[in-house]
Amino acid sequence: MKIAVDAMGGDNAPGEIVKGALAAAREHDLGIILVGPQDRLQRELAANDATGLDIEIVHTDEYLVEGEHPAYALRQKRNASVAVAVKMVKKGRAAAAVSAGSTGGVVAAGLQILGTVEGIARPVVGGNFLGFAPQMVVMDMGGNVDCRPDQLLDFAIVGRVYAQKLLKVADPTVALLSTGAEEGKGNSQVRESYELFKKAGINFIGNVEGIDIPAGKANVIICDGFVGNVMVKFTEAMGEVVGGWLAGKLAGKVPESDIDDIRAELRRATNTADTLGGGPIWAVDGVVIVAHGRSKAPAIAGAIGQAKSVVEVDLIGSLKEELVAARRKLKESVGV
Amino acid sequence: MKIAVDAMGGDNAPGEIVKGALAAAREHDLGIILVGPQDRLQRELAANDATGLDIEIVHTDEYLVEGEHPAYALRQKRNASVAVAVKMVKKGRAAAAVSAGSTGGVVAAGLQILGTVEGIARPVVGGNFLGFAPQMVVMDMGGNVDCRPDQLLDFAIVGRVYAQKLLKVADPTVALLSTGAEEGKGNSQVRESYELFKKAGINFIGNVEGIDIPAGKANVIICDGFVGNVMVKFTEAMGEVVGGWLAGKLAGKVPESDIDDIRAELRRATNTADTLGGGPIWAVDGVVIVAHGRSKAPAIAGAIGQAKSVVEVDLIGSLKEELVAARRKLKESVGV
Repeated sequence: MKIAVDAMGGDNAPGEIVKGALAAAREHDLGIILVGPQDRLQRELAANDATGLDIEIVHTDEYLVEGEHPAYALRQKRNASVAVAVKMVKKGRAAAAVSAGSTGGVVAAGLQILGTVEGIARPVVGGNFLGFAPQMVVMDMGGNVDCRPDQLLDFAIVGRVYAQKLLKVADPTVALLSTGAEEGKGNSQVRESYELFKKAGINFIGNVEGIDIPAGKANVIICDGFVGNVMVKFTEAMGEVVGGWLAGKLAGKVPESDIDDIRAELRRATNTADTLGGGPIWAVDGVVIVAHGRSKAPAIAGAIGQAKSVVEVDLIGSLKEELVAARRKLKESVGV
Repeated sequence: MKIAVDAMGGDNAPGEIVKGALAAAREHDLGIILVGPQDRLQRELAANDATGLDIEIVHTDEYLVEGEHPAYALRQKRNASVAVAVKMVKKGRAAAAVSAGSTGGVVAAGLQILGTVEGIARPVVGGNFLGFAPQMVVMDMGGNVDCRPDQLLDFAIVGRVYAQKLLKVADPTVALLSTGAEEGKGNSQVRESYELFKKAGINFIGNVEGIDIPAGKANVIICDGFVGNVMVKFTEAMGEVVGGWLAGKLAGKVPESDIDDIRAELRRATNTADTLGGGPIWAVDGVVIVAHGRSKAPAIAGAIGQAKSVVEVDLIGSLKEELVAARRKLKESVGV
């Protein structure tokens, strides 16, 4: 299997990207297509040990830079490294593309070049949310800030495929995040979605509240991207603040190395974006993985490894099947 | 000063309510009007030491019970203890009312009997959100799940009065909770509110993100009650889950009493509803304090003490002045 890697995306490109790609090639037995300026990438390769690895360079001089409007910049730079990496997927030369560039840029490249899976209008960002609840995913954590009920249902289906294929939960439970457990609680978006979710055959267990999240009360928790984005960033900051407070409490009472371990573990549990090393751009019709912009080599290697898993379990194929099934179920329930 | 106390509200009524009221009377030099069944309350008083305290009983046999629809139940039980306590405020016999009954019931009694401050349609729930950010309040954490921009502006004004009067911040900063710092980020509700907030003369500093909350980046953070409710419950559960995880990590390494102290402090920091022992029903035209349903005597005494502070700083009067000032400012800005 070959994975295309945007060698110019992210804060630490291209050095750490190339290092991570080499590590992934070795660890996961993968071929890698590095996309970026030939000279620079060859220098990076020469500085590392690539012996026996299947590494190819696809040259481009263009790449997106911080602060550009992604969709606009991609129209100006048709050969931006992230776009060329995604085109490798479109052409069938790579099974997946990986980039640590800005999420906006990766999403825009995925949308422009691969389009979305039929029936889903916009990509979804989601996945594991909290280390304390490893069998739970939250969708959407990202771009969809004003959502209709049918979009939330799409997120639920994506979440179920995620939980089935990547977390190995046979029949994942789905819940709507709301202000109370009873039907009828929540804002108008949640109340309308509740009706739809009941009919879609998605193992819907009703509403969960904020207090239910750390306990992982459902495998798939659905909210719009506004709520999800606020929550994921708040959780990351809470991990940092509680870790710092704790270090003060424990100073002089336990060895410093123990304190460091506790803080690191708390950070992993509360910052799953960093820990997972990225995630798929859901609903794009092809495997595109975005890694955190701050990623260093190990996180890049992790994201490339994740790309391989996503391809192997045929995530996109399963998603298409589930979407068709849920729509059929909905039609049956209204007697069409 | 006299405070009316709903002796029949809350999980531990009337025993703990009466105990807490006596403690508050002694500690804060207050007169107390206990509202509930004469016989039961006299028995509770006899079981405690009320020597030298100014305690009066106002009799009623009716009170709300768990599971009733609050507004409906109040129409059936016109002399429910919470309603009678609030009527003491309306009649000028008490400076404030305190209840540990269901928030819905206390809000409904406040609304039906006192009405709202002019210009605010519905009550707001909010206040200190996190022990790690003691100079920050979040509004709304409660009932207003679908909000227009002008309602969010009302919350901001309430929040500023709270921060000025109770946190002693001279000119509190106000921010909108959103998905990005820049103007234009967020959902349609936030984007529209941004325009309004800029013109209202409320020391508006723009958007903050979830990551800015634990650091207390603004004194007043504004969100709708859906987001606020999810956040406050999530935070409470995070405190519990992290505390439990930590206890496991530290077991055998530090004395058990130290672990208990750390867990208790973390709980206080993440469960401010419990810690504060309640809060005002904002926007009701009179001082009504709701205490947590689980409150025991110390929390009840705390809520009664808070009622006294709220009366002393003339919170309601200040709120009315600030509302008038913000509306004048808005009119000036559009040249009306």
